[in-house]
Amino acid sequence: MTITQQIILKSRPEGRPTEDNFELIECPLKAPQDGEVLCKNLFLSLDPYMRSQIAGRHISGAIPEGGILLGETVAEVIESNNASYTVGDRILIQGGWQTYTVLKPESARPIDPRIAPASLALGVLGMPGLTAYAGIQYLAEAKKGDTLVVSAASGAVGSMVGQFAKTKGCHVIGIAGSKEKCDWLVKEAGFDACINYKENSVADEIDRLCSKGVDIYFDNVGGPILDDIMWRLAVGARVVLCGLMAQINSEDRPAGPNPATIIKARATVRGLVVYDFWDKMPEMVDCFAPLIAANKLKFIEDISVGIDQAPVAFARLMRGENYGKTIIKLG
Amino acid sequence: MTITQQIILKSRPEGRPTEDNFELIECPLKAPQDGEVLCKNLFLSLDPYMRSQIAGRHISGAIPEGGILLGETVAEVIESNNASYTVGDRILIQGGWQTYTVLKPESARPIDPRIAPASLALGVLGMPGLTAYAGIQYLAEAKKGDTLVVSAASGAVGSMVGQFAKTKGCHVIGIAGSKEKCDWLVKEAGFDACINYKENSVADEIDRLCSKGVDIYFDNVGGPILDDIMWRLAVGARVVLCGLMAQINSEDRPAGPNPATIIKARATVRGLVVYDFWDKMPEMVDCFAPLIAANKLKFIEDISVGIDQAPVAFARLMRGENYGKTIIKLG
Repeated sequence: MTITQQIILKSRPEGRPTEDNFELIECPLKAPQDGEVLCKNLFLSLDPYMRSQIAGRHISGAIPEGGILLGETVAEVIESNNASYTVGDRILIQGGWQTYTVLKPESARPIDPRIAPASLALGVLGMPGLTAYAGIQYLAEAKKGDTLVVSAASGAVGSMVGQFAKTKGCHVIGIAGSKEKCDWLVKEAGFDACINYKENSVADEIDRLCSKGVDIYFDNVGGPILDDIMWRLAVGARVVLCGLMAQINSEDRPAGPNPATIIKARATVRGLVVYDFWDKMPEMVDCFAPLIAANKLKFIEDISVGIDQAPVAFARLMRGENYGKTIIKLG
Repeated sequence: MTITQQIILKSRPEGRPTEDNFELIECPLKAPQDGEVLCKNLFLSLDPYMRSQIAGRHISGAIPEGGILLGETVAEVIESNNASYTVGDRILIQGGWQTYTVLKPESARPIDPRIAPASLALGVLGMPGLTAYAGIQYLAEAKKGDTLVVSAASGAVGSMVGQFAKTKGCHVIGIAGSKEKCDWLVKEAGFDACINYKENSVADEIDRLCSKGVDIYFDNVGGPILDDIMWRLAVGARVVLCGLMAQINSEDRPAGPNPATIIKARATVRGLVVYDFWDKMPEMVDCFAPLIAANKLKFIEDISVGIDQAPVAFARLMRGENYGKTIIKLG
């Protein structure tokens, strides 16, 4: 019998989660039944949207108190009762925050052989990469010469948004929370500039860096940064709303920007939910994998080792202290 | 020498304007110089955007204290020093709040002969009609079966939005501020329902009337009504932001809806400024004039007589007590 180590939600956090909201338990797994596979999880993805699952308000599902945390894993099949899978197969599954998973692999996906290391299937060549790709390719109407601003710019989504926009000929300005992050974005990822919002006024810096206004704003945060940018849109601007980091740890639903900001700029503001673009995953890999192989798209993985580190790493992500894509290495 | 009676801005209002903020004066007009015409103004249009001009923050211009109020008029040429115009011509001009105007008619437009009475060139077959037309035709992506909600629904823009959307096969719900207005919209203008926001909760009524959510929201007000609707958008909703009646009399720029409303619905929110669509005026008249002639588009004109009535009528418009398109008859 296989024993899985898993992280459950001990108590629903108020505000930012801490390690104390989680608990590591061990439990036996039933052997895989007909059609099922037993997987060893190699890498677990930690993502901001999980905070909304914990609060019970995410479209992808809710976590009850005492329930296992949900999450995507890169996994290896170690026992198979499903004709489509053989031992040794590496697949992407909804494995959860645990070391082993038994499941009917109906929504499992094979890992594209161009994705190496395999952990990238959780980051720049997975859901966050697809988020960036879909936003720029399908919603932002990006064109050469546009000034694009992206917040949470060093995160898994933000860093790809900026770099992909650069390939479209945009002038790219990031917003991030430390000098180290800003330096990486400008020196390594090729951003034209980066605003450290903890040290500088976003409004003043945008005025200085975007004297003709912001043509595209890719928002991962909401809150005051969104408001500052909305008042500084160029006529015809496009805004992609993607993340809500500024309110994700709050029960409140604070107000947003005044509608005059949108009228004044004749802006088009669109909401992005990556699941709507899931069928574009191969298209995204076609686009990004060669650029990554050629070292033309840079990325950072923030890897912790061991399932017991998941709560610590998630709390750090919620404090904005992660540096690149947050991954737990389990294998 | 021609004497014009004109309304000037005596004092900049705080909050809603009253008659006391305006003053009627008489002044002599210079004879028309080379290229100029002298016009007798027959009808003056009063519109909500003028409040923003008075506050000095409208894209079309600002009114200094002591200055004449701006506004579009239907005018008759009574003296011409311009080869393109002859005495008796009826034209649309930026005549201002006055009885006579001398100007170089560079941006004057002839009145389409299908527009009768001529006052309609200021309303349903003029700028407000074009606003409704552009919003539905170019921004709302209206299609058969969509549920459309429009606020300030009995106004010059709102009533045309709803009726035009009906011709596209939409299910149309208005929001207006009196039983009389709601009755007219349902019984005369063919709206499917109308919410009297002064008597009922907009949120509750939308929940009741739009159980599948709102596909298109055409917003003329901002404020709490906008917020109520944004939380009730259907997936894939389109929102056209057009007017700001809820904040037009305030110096504050209050916050707007939470960005989660847009993400959740994968909505597309667009700002509408009618001047961007000015070249579509003939196209709008082609579309609306036959429908009006066939009595298939209903309208109301709220006509007061005499330039001295302009401040009274404008104050009434600002209190939402107008009923249809506000016009001052001068001729």
